[in-house]
Amino acid sequence: MPVRNSSAEPRMTSPNLEFLQALRTDARTKILFLVLDGLGGLPLRERGPTELEAASTPNLDALARSGVLGIHDPVGPGITPGSGVGHLALFGYDPIRYRIGRGVLEALGVDFALGAGDVAARGNFCSVDAAGAVVDRRAGRLSSERARALVERLRAIELPGVQLFVEPVKEHRFLLVLRGPDLSAEVTDTDPGREGVPALEPQPRTPEARATAELVRAFVSAARARLGGERDANMVVLRGFDQLPAWPSFGSVYGLRAAAIAAYPMYRGVARVLGMPTIVPAATLDEEFDAVPQVWADHDFVFLHVKDTDRAGEDGDFQAKVNAIEDVDARLPRLLDLKPDVVVVTGDHSTPARLRQHSWHAVPLLLWSSNCRPDELVEFSERACVRGSLGRLPATDIMPLALGHAGRLARYGA
Amino acid sequence: MPVRNSSAEPRMTSPNLEFLQALRTDARTKILFLVLDGLGGLPLRERGPTELEAASTPNLDALARSGVLGIHDPVGPGITPGSGVGHLALFGYDPIRYRIGRGVLEALGVDFALGAGDVAARGNFCSVDAAGAVVDRRAGRLSSERARALVERLRAIELPGVQLFVEPVKEHRFLLVLRGPDLSAEVTDTDPGREGVPALEPQPRTPEARATAELVRAFVSAARARLGGERDANMVVLRGFDQLPAWPSFGSVYGLRAAAIAAYPMYRGVARVLGMPTIVPAATLDEEFDAVPQVWADHDFVFLHVKDTDRAGEDGDFQAKVNAIEDVDARLPRLLDLKPDVVVVTGDHSTPARLRQHSWHAVPLLLWSSNCRPDELVEFSERACVRGSLGRLPATDIMPLALGHAGRLARYGA
Repeated sequence: MPVRNSSAEPRMTSPNLEFLQALRTDARTKILFLVLDGLGGLPLRERGPTELEAASTPNLDALARSGVLGIHDPVGPGITPGSGVGHLALFGYDPIRYRIGRGVLEALGVDFALGAGDVAARGNFCSVDAAGAVVDRRAGRLSSERARALVERLRAIELPGVQLFVEPVKEHRFLLVLRGPDLSAEVTDTDPGREGVPALEPQPRTPEARATAELVRAFVSAARARLGGERDANMVVLRGFDQLPAWPSFGSVYGLRAAAIAAYPMYRGVARVLGMPTIVPAATLDEEFDAVPQVWADHDFVFLHVKDTDRAGEDGDFQAKVNAIEDVDARLPRLLDLKPDVVVVTGDHSTPARLRQHSWHAVPLLLWSSNCRPDELVEFSERACVRGSLGRLPATDIMPLALGHAGRLARYGA
Repeated sequence: MPVRNSSAEPRMTSPNLEFLQALRTDARTKILFLVLDGLGGLPLRERGPTELEAASTPNLDALARSGVLGIHDPVGPGITPGSGVGHLALFGYDPIRYRIGRGVLEALGVDFALGAGDVAARGNFCSVDAAGAVVDRRAGRLSSERARALVERLRAIELPGVQLFVEPVKEHRFLLVLRGPDLSAEVTDTDPGREGVPALEPQPRTPEARATAELVRAFVSAARARLGGERDANMVVLRGFDQLPAWPSFGSVYGLRAAAIAAYPMYRGVARVLGMPTIVPAATLDEEFDAVPQVWADHDFVFLHVKDTDRAGEDGDFQAKVNAIEDVDARLPRLLDLKPDVVVVTGDHSTPARLRQHSWHAVPLLLWSSNCRPDELVEFSERACVRGSLGRLPATDIMPLALGHAGRLARYGA
């Protein structure tokens, strides 16, 4: 196993994926992984409760009583995580080491099934003047409806030897995907990043990317021709050319058959990037919870993602976040009836209603199994979690803890 | 931005400087960073209070009530830090990775304004016998007063193409600085490190250091000629040739206009090494506190260093350390009147009066901002800090926490 040797290397706390993979051992145990997006909160007033503390959560509290609590940092103290980043950390992939680029992120966000070798980029409709200088990089933030019509025009573009996919994202944003042999993402942005100058020519960063850069150039040129009649969206700019990362899959690292259940595309996308074999869309919370028993028999890791907590936090709606937490609590017995061996309940970051956005605050963590050493805390709350026996830990420690309690890690050393 | 990319690398806990730099975002917030040197203490008797616990600190306690507490390790558990090292860690520079050499340390300690390219070395007056063998590497620890007179003789030495600076340090110690074009610190020590053998010839470690080694040889030779009449200090030995490190400056990493206020040269020196633009000497605690409002408007990070806590600890004077803490507490309202957005109060290491020296014990940490998640602790003390919601953390996590609470770090990942 590689160990630290250079003085330039930062220090390590949590065992990394290779280390865990080497210890993995088969067991018939099952892990339920319940993520309440943006779970961590803040009191609205001094000495007041957080959202989680204000919520009535008899089922989570009962689980806390016989489980263990802690508080985790998804990326590090003081760092506010994006949702993709927060989930990578929960799944044990250090998000500083494992980075998802812009193009792939856009693809995940619209549920596009990116394949290995595909090249994805983020596109903007923009407006250029007669001399070709970019006048508005966002084409006046044109409506999603109009963008959809313009996307149809781009979809008619054909290029030799590759399949093209153009997907509307929101307003002026779209996703471009090239699929074909020998593509490379080493192509520079055409988005100049500012206005008053022309769009840039796509350049290959490596000799292998020459053909791809040529295809991108042809696409931009065709797009300009097809949008020429528009006044405020007569051109496109592209940035963040990117391919699916070649990471070790969740299954190969942990030896778990994983199922992901999520109403939002981004979270199904993260599961797809990690190679989770079963990915279940669901329109409502009840559909999500109903999907668990359906996948239970054939999987030993079920990730259930709840979005409403984060949405309420971003809306600044404290009570809606309380309600969202209570909605989960009320449905928890359905999941516990399946007799999971290990249950993890946590968030991917904090989204305090008071701040109306993701924040850097550490995230409550509850781990239950029949063989944990209970810490005598009687409720699932930020205050209790701070006193929990798991302490304050990086999110990447959660998977090893879950695996350990599930009897899925062999002893290290004789 | 260089990022981590090798799968062989272990994970890092504290996001490093490059990572933080990439996330830095502008804000109008201000951070007050109050360092009580050697703050951490020990009880004198079983169940007794530490110095901080014995002190009456109503203002710090009030800050703790609405802030968060934790306990930090400047270098790592069990490691006793020097003062320079402890401060580097507080400022987010991992002291295992960012090392200051002996020569630069001596320059900082006597407030010498070392410039880029200057070569500094630690010198000792020593005595040699007629055959040239070193008899006493410290020349009988001659008095500082006499050393000052000998330094004057060395100052008269002239060498071609360089400026020479010789500064008395204490007793037999002095600082030598060479200033000129194309100097290199890759010169070996002339100090043999033991007695009974002659001083070593300075050797270049690289071809670029040849000219510098020659200058050092000429200096030593001239010094010997000028000290020849002395019986107990008739020669010098030099070691730790060193240049200012080329580190990313504090301002460039964090985007903060920093001011350092310190009565002791060493701490102004650390601030100088980090490129803090404003460095304020002050003779007394009151002068230090009075300097804060003067720099407040034009800076967004003010580091105030208090030495008396450490001095009392090193003197083994428990009550003097209690008094030094109370002196700070009494003056704290003057600083809070400035309405800082984030306040950090901590130490660079522990100096328990019971041990009369720096120690490895973790250091109390208090962070206050209007948007922290309070942990319901009501006093600033070692015992409370151990139960604080920040947990036990490496000192290099303090800057990201301060920046996060100050709204000065962008979200990581979409």
